[in-house]
Amino acid sequence: MSESRLPKDTPLKDLRAAIRAGRYSGHTAGYARGHVQGNVVILPKRWAFDFLAYCQRNPRPCPLLAVSSPGDPTLPELGEDLDIRTDVPRYRVFREGALLDEPTDIRDLWRDDLVTFVLGCSFSFEEALLDAGVPVRHLEQGSNAAMFRTNIMTRPAGPFRGELVVTMRPMPPAAAIRAVQITSRFPFAHGAPVHLADPEAIGIEDLSRPDWGDAVEVRPGEIPVFWACGVTTQVAIANARPELTITHKPGSMLITDLKNAEMTTL
Amino acid sequence: MSESRLPKDTPLKDLRAAIRAGRYSGHTAGYARGHVQGNVVILPKRWAFDFLAYCQRNPRPCPLLAVSSPGDPTLPELGEDLDIRTDVPRYRVFREGALLDEPTDIRDLWRDDLVTFVLGCSFSFEEALLDAGVPVRHLEQGSNAAMFRTNIMTRPAGPFRGELVVTMRPMPPAAAIRAVQITSRFPFAHGAPVHLADPEAIGIEDLSRPDWGDAVEVRPGEIPVFWACGVTTQVAIANARPELTITHKPGSMLITDLKNAEMTTL
Repeated sequence: MSESRLPKDTPLKDLRAAIRAGRYSGHTAGYARGHVQGNVVILPKRWAFDFLAYCQRNPRPCPLLAVSSPGDPTLPELGEDLDIRTDVPRYRVFREGALLDEPTDIRDLWRDDLVTFVLGCSFSFEEALLDAGVPVRHLEQGSNAAMFRTNIMTRPAGPFRGELVVTMRPMPPAAAIRAVQITSRFPFAHGAPVHLADPEAIGIEDLSRPDWGDAVEVRPGEIPVFWACGVTTQVAIANARPELTITHKPGSMLITDLKNAEMTTL
Repeated sequence: MSESRLPKDTPLKDLRAAIRAGRYSGHTAGYARGHVQGNVVILPKRWAFDFLAYCQRNPRPCPLLAVSSPGDPTLPELGEDLDIRTDVPRYRVFREGALLDEPTDIRDLWRDDLVTFVLGCSFSFEEALLDAGVPVRHLEQGSNAAMFRTNIMTRPAGPFRGELVVTMRPMPPAAAIRAVQITSRFPFAHGAPVHLADPEAIGIEDLSRPDWGDAVEVRPGEIPVFWACGVTTQVAIANARPELTITHKPGSMLITDLKNAEMTTL
């Protein structure tokens, strides 16, 4: 099935069935509106304590939604029937840091010592920003968020270490204040911004040249607002070079049964 | 030095020095006002992933403030000069679940594979409740909080499993509503209540007979309000029976450099 043929309002049950069967392997932005989507990292047990400690120490870039038991492909906290071996549209398989493959399921790679980590992502709060009338330029433009490597070091844990990666969303100051209020309610999805205004203060020299994603214009009267980004884990994993890492392909997230509205704090 | 001779307004630096030297080994409630205090659990590395996963799955009873690297007695996230081997007023040492000793330092027990976990505690939000004029009966009475084992099962992780333990604070309904608002801002210290009113709904048959701590009267016109409690970890550890566990002695917490006001959410 062509990916574009799956309408964005496809019910979650049908969407998950299509993903599980390999019939949908595309991006998940805009699908299953209201549901929490997650970044996925799968590591051998030998690396799991250090990675879990890394997430605990860096909750803004690494807001853990769930960690599986070793060898257990289910994620009962995130969905009754979820199977991490089949329910991500497209995976990435790394060996010692090198990308080897981008399969649509990982049943043949599954091992008894694999531990799954699912981390919240910015889709959750972007939905809330749009609902509140706060502009999200890259969504208006139909492009990816602009992502930048900063000069802020995350707290290391074992071999996992590296710079904080941020997304940037440009907006007028009044909208930035509203965005702080709104995204503070989403600690499970990166939470409040980590910085706003002067990009150089966090080591970003040129906003028109993002390290990942697409350039997004900052218009006169706007300031850039920066949120911690899940790509931070990719940097930390690249530095750690585990013998095996499996992740989602960026943009093709795990869609959970959880609702954003259930997860927001006061 | 007699414990009662250390005034409650002793500066943190002096208080920590007294604790470190074994000159103060008492309760820490009311000391170092404004500072975050923590429950302490120290386990061999072999048990650390499962316990960390247990905390991740049960954030209300187990709000992790920090996890150390194996063998590292420092906790730089919680205080520049903290040393977990000396900076808790009194410890408890368990071997396979049995209490063996209550020393004032654990330098002789330290091993290269020990991992320290520090979890937030209700002292943080009780200070905020009092500041907001919400009554905290057990503090008024100078007694311990009443703690109860519920029929709510926590999410297990490896050998760590068991019932949720709660504290109970009685208050008028209007104060209970205010208490929900206030404690929601303290996710790092158990956060919002897990239940209010009918105790039997969570398996508590007699409020006058707590499983730990002291009985606290519920007066006419008041309802009991229940918060998740750090004693939940003691139940989970007793079920897991690790070969070695070191904890703080209840009431004698680790006092950190962190300020409650820095940690509260929106």
